[in-house]
Amino acid sequence: MRGTVLYGPGDIRFEDREDPKIIDPTDAIIRMAATCVCGSDLWPYRGLQPLNGPTPMGHEYCGFVEEVGSAVTSIKPGQFVVGSFATSDNTCAHCRYGYQSSCAQREFISRAQAPYLRVPLADGTLVPSPGGAPSADLLPSLLTTSDVLGTGWYAADAANVKPGVTVVVVGDGAVGLMGVLSARQMGAERIIAMSRHESRQKIALDFGATDIITERGDEGVARIKDLTKGVGADSVLECVGTQESMMQAIHSTRPGGFVSFVGVPHGVELNGQQLFFSHVHLHGGPAPVRRYLPHLMGLVLNGEIMPGKVFDLTLPLDQVAEGYRAMDERRAIKTLLQP
Amino acid sequence: MRGTVLYGPGDIRFEDREDPKIIDPTDAIIRMAATCVCGSDLWPYRGLQPLNGPTPMGHEYCGFVEEVGSAVTSIKPGQFVVGSFATSDNTCAHCRYGYQSSCAQREFISRAQAPYLRVPLADGTLVPSPGGAPSADLLPSLLTTSDVLGTGWYAADAANVKPGVTVVVVGDGAVGLMGVLSARQMGAERIIAMSRHESRQKIALDFGATDIITERGDEGVARIKDLTKGVGADSVLECVGTQESMMQAIHSTRPGGFVSFVGVPHGVELNGQQLFFSHVHLHGGPAPVRRYLPHLMGLVLNGEIMPGKVFDLTLPLDQVAEGYRAMDERRAIKTLLQP
Repeated sequence: MRGTVLYGPGDIRFEDREDPKIIDPTDAIIRMAATCVCGSDLWPYRGLQPLNGPTPMGHEYCGFVEEVGSAVTSIKPGQFVVGSFATSDNTCAHCRYGYQSSCAQREFISRAQAPYLRVPLADGTLVPSPGGAPSADLLPSLLTTSDVLGTGWYAADAANVKPGVTVVVVGDGAVGLMGVLSARQMGAERIIAMSRHESRQKIALDFGATDIITERGDEGVARIKDLTKGVGADSVLECVGTQESMMQAIHSTRPGGFVSFVGVPHGVELNGQQLFFSHVHLHGGPAPVRRYLPHLMGLVLNGEIMPGKVFDLTLPLDQVAEGYRAMDERRAIKTLLQP
Repeated sequence: MRGTVLYGPGDIRFEDREDPKIIDPTDAIIRMAATCVCGSDLWPYRGLQPLNGPTPMGHEYCGFVEEVGSAVTSIKPGQFVVGSFATSDNTCAHCRYGYQSSCAQREFISRAQAPYLRVPLADGTLVPSPGGAPSADLLPSLLTTSDVLGTGWYAADAANVKPGVTVVVVGDGAVGLMGVLSARQMGAERIIAMSRHESRQKIALDFGATDIITERGDEGVARIKDLTKGVGADSVLECVGTQESMMQAIHSTRPGGFVSFVGVPHGVELNGQQLFFSHVHLHGGPAPVRRYLPHLMGLVLNGEIMPGKVFDLTLPLDQVAEGYRAMDERRAIKTLLQP
């Protein structure tokens, strides 16, 4: 088969690779129905994260089970499945606490921008669609549950979003937009999206944002304070991963409020004393998507949410390089790839 | 009157000062029944925190109301009161959320090692003892509710201590020991105190610790992992405020577990990526003692807890310099001062 490999900054190739095979008896092989490019793929694409030689790419996936290893019991060939970007046995202590992305046996998926994918720990990682093969129009939304929606949902959950609260979402990338949608689902009263791009503002409003703020940094914080009678927000979702966005998030939160951070931080250092006097709760990390998958797949299959709207570019898989370019140049929010 | 003033590292003087007077109509003047030396007083005493000239000291207090300003309505002369080290109006948004130590009108008390004290925002800061003047044997325990117990309680609360959980307390100073007592009250199943001082270990065990660990740093973390089947603790109370203690706390916590930090951090910097992959919840700041005061005073007055045991040295107020020295040299855990 051919698959996606990053050779260096800006150098994405779709090239011959070996077909994935069952290696461990707990593996499954799936045939991709749809995959996509993640905002986090852009860090190494932009040269902001070191590479160890040519690197197969992709960690968001859904598709049909082709084959399973001898120890796989609940996942069956032919099922339509979605899995998390982090594999999990779903039985260790960390998994039982709901932190499957810190599973004792965790591996990070990294070869999903391809027509076939080996998924380790299939029983604990994959969730079958209860109704069998979904209709084609649901595919994009189901694909989002594999990472970007699960991560946005975790951002809202980790920031303690509850009915009635005031939420701020820092970052208008796909994860931030999913954070808006998730906060709306969780009953937030007010959802303030920080965005200066018209196309993203539109999706944010469509997903349930009540206010848009275009200011950033200290000015952005001042606007949030204005909008909250000087108090600050209850829940702030940091969906970027830079020092500036993190400080913007912390300073926008009221004392006793909650800050989540769900994008891998790059160059972020937090001063202990500043954090102390901010009085915020802070929680983040790689989203435990597996915890949320059954619920989120259900919301999609029942037609309650349409997170697939976040894909504003769809390309054949072999044009994956253009998919990266479009996102890098901010011509696209998120690129869906069809095998 | 005479009061305590820090002139420079190691230079505590008990010297003539003006009697405190009502300045704002919301003030009260209290006559000290007991005050004490806080672990945080040792930072400037040791020269680890800069001074702006001679500095009046002390922020833990209880005593009798002598006089109130014209706008004070609920606090009356003659009442026995305890107050927080942070003043609060108890009506602003932050106070109503339970974060009175971030009150919009907050001031930090800093002249309490003296026979009289002016307390701003008396109605919102002071809590009268419901039964009138308490018996002398309860005074030390009531005094602890003013800061050290309130801070230990907040440490346990902010670390989400619940019935059945496994708790680690980093730091065997007075706040750490109060954290042990608080975790016990909140129903923790296992309380692991990190301490290498026999006298402190004894109090920790008396307050409810189930295990003592003498190792520190990576070795301490390894011991915690051993004791928790490799998983890590549910709730970790960081009661020191250094980089080493903070990292020890974070690394001792299971993914999804809770770390609180309640001592002002000195030289602490947290790496965003490390914090991200640790998957912990982090919450700290100056303890909102006012939130807990009625409950904690009740526990003391009902004889359910005896936190006053943490005072292992009692001196007349005019020997305050020796009180600092004894704590600095670790001859005393905490010094009570009698006016």
